[in-house]
Amino acid sequence: MTDQHYDIIIIGTGAAGLSAAVYAGRYNMKALVIGAEFGGETAKAGSVENWPGDIGVDGYDLMSRMKKHAEHVGAKVIDDEALSVTPAGTCFAVKTREGEYHATNIVFAQGSRRRRLGLQNEEELTGNGVHFCVTCDGPVYAGKTIALVGGGDAAAKGAHLVAEYVNKVYVIVRKDKMRAEPVNVERLVNMPEKITILYNAEVKEIKKTPEGKFGGITLTRDHKQTPDLPIDGLFIEVGADPNVGLAKAASVALDEAGHIETDNMMQTNVPGLYAAGDIVAHFGHFKQDITASAMGAVAATSAYAHFKEHAEKGGCKHEN
Amino acid sequence: MTDQHYDIIIIGTGAAGLSAAVYAGRYNMKALVIGAEFGGETAKAGSVENWPGDIGVDGYDLMSRMKKHAEHVGAKVIDDEALSVTPAGTCFAVKTREGEYHATNIVFAQGSRRRRLGLQNEEELTGNGVHFCVTCDGPVYAGKTIALVGGGDAAAKGAHLVAEYVNKVYVIVRKDKMRAEPVNVERLVNMPEKITILYNAEVKEIKKTPEGKFGGITLTRDHKQTPDLPIDGLFIEVGADPNVGLAKAASVALDEAGHIETDNMMQTNVPGLYAAGDIVAHFGHFKQDITASAMGAVAATSAYAHFKEHAEKGGCKHEN
Repeated sequence: MTDQHYDIIIIGTGAAGLSAAVYAGRYNMKALVIGAEFGGETAKAGSVENWPGDIGVDGYDLMSRMKKHAEHVGAKVIDDEALSVTPAGTCFAVKTREGEYHATNIVFAQGSRRRRLGLQNEEELTGNGVHFCVTCDGPVYAGKTIALVGGGDAAAKGAHLVAEYVNKVYVIVRKDKMRAEPVNVERLVNMPEKITILYNAEVKEIKKTPEGKFGGITLTRDHKQTPDLPIDGLFIEVGADPNVGLAKAASVALDEAGHIETDNMMQTNVPGLYAAGDIVAHFGHFKQDITASAMGAVAATSAYAHFKEHAEKGGCKHEN
Repeated sequence: MTDQHYDIIIIGTGAAGLSAAVYAGRYNMKALVIGAEFGGETAKAGSVENWPGDIGVDGYDLMSRMKKHAEHVGAKVIDDEALSVTPAGTCFAVKTREGEYHATNIVFAQGSRRRRLGLQNEEELTGNGVHFCVTCDGPVYAGKTIALVGGGDAAAKGAHLVAEYVNKVYVIVRKDKMRAEPVNVERLVNMPEKITILYNAEVKEIKKTPEGKFGGITLTRDHKQTPDLPIDGLFIEVGADPNVGLAKAASVALDEAGHIETDNMMQTNVPGLYAAGDIVAHFGHFKQDITASAMGAVAATSAYAHFKEHAEKGGCKHEN
């Protein structure tokens, strides 16, 4: 075994990956966490107000606390990008941009990437006017006016939920109808005083004030004689793509919607390979830090059981 | 609707119940949390070192933080005991020691009660020498000598895990063999330098020093010519009983081991009734604050969907 051998390699430094590392470290496993973008989506989310026990915490700070915790129990967290996971004897090799590591177990925790509109100012204003999670950031806009982009079920449910908080919601739908479940569309239609659905409309521009703040949006068509929509915040709910490329190439089975398929213990179809967080749809569309964290802890626990069994059989064989 | 009507009543004020309340409050549901023992098992656990992001936090403090969070988002948390849950029209009535409340949805989050030995000093020293969770408190005894009581699979696995940290483990088994899976017993037998299994033995006395600290145990039989076992800590792993009495009486289905049966969204067989935390075996034997918290958040989310649908059908009918 070289110095580059670990008991467990966790790919992803969001809530799932770092929580897996906290548990793995506590099980005295030699753990490596590889993250290309520290803190995942959470680190970019701005204020997190639904991490139980913290009324409000900056997403980046929460991820930093988890990283410190993981390091405190002995896990090594590195800033690198995993490029492939392949079998190496009875273990696995992980090639990265900067090196190569071996491990008995791998946890895939790379999350998913919420689809962007691809407009100017979108990245810069994320967390400050532009948002990708109604459950997380909706309450911030109490009494305000917002727009929500999307025509699917998540958009319809999100618009209905955000209407709990805000005064006025514009739902911006590209086509002439929503793809959401009819019952969810009906709910929006039944609240005409709060919710206005703008069909055949897209966001053309996300505006920034001279002070660098969110300054509303411009649409591809007029509404009330103007393409400018004066709103306080924009929610983008146009889907997310789980980052399953590495797992798929390692023969890990996916579910119908393209997430990694696991059992309740976060085990994939390949012994030694686990998954946790937004890369899994264990709790359906409900994807939060708290659920990601729990899945990470479970994945590390399953990996520990596998690691012990594997060690009794002699550990990694035919290793390069 | 009387003043005593809630959108959701959560029974239990541990990690599952309080996290459900945080999410329910953020969904703008009128939420009541009823707890007979504030903070559940966690509040009595002493230092919690596996809540991701908190290297060490007192269990009672963590639960207090969650309570504050729940109250901050509008949930009402009361110190009372739920005595029954019965249908009331299309909703539910919850009778308590001190009152009666109605709600559209109920979340059962009463946890489980870890079985005690029933000895003097056991309650008093819990968290300080006497422990009920190896995963939680094992690392505290790094380099020390401990005893673990129990003959089942959780005991065998716990002894093996705690051997990661400690110098010496005595496993105290009442009968002349363990009921655990053979492979898990074998693992203990294969570590004679670290693990000694004492069969036909029980704990007779948990000793307390004049300073009120844990002072080792006395066995019902001699080991090395004396019944006194000089140890630094005692782990008790003799099972747990999920607190399912109320749920069972409300026609909620249980699984084989007596936990509440739910789907992945924490829904029981009865519409409007949900369960979360240690009362459920969603992640098998793995029962932690982080998993309880996640399940609570999921239960509140499912309850919110049900609440909306229910309200559209006219809310509670034939209510008393």
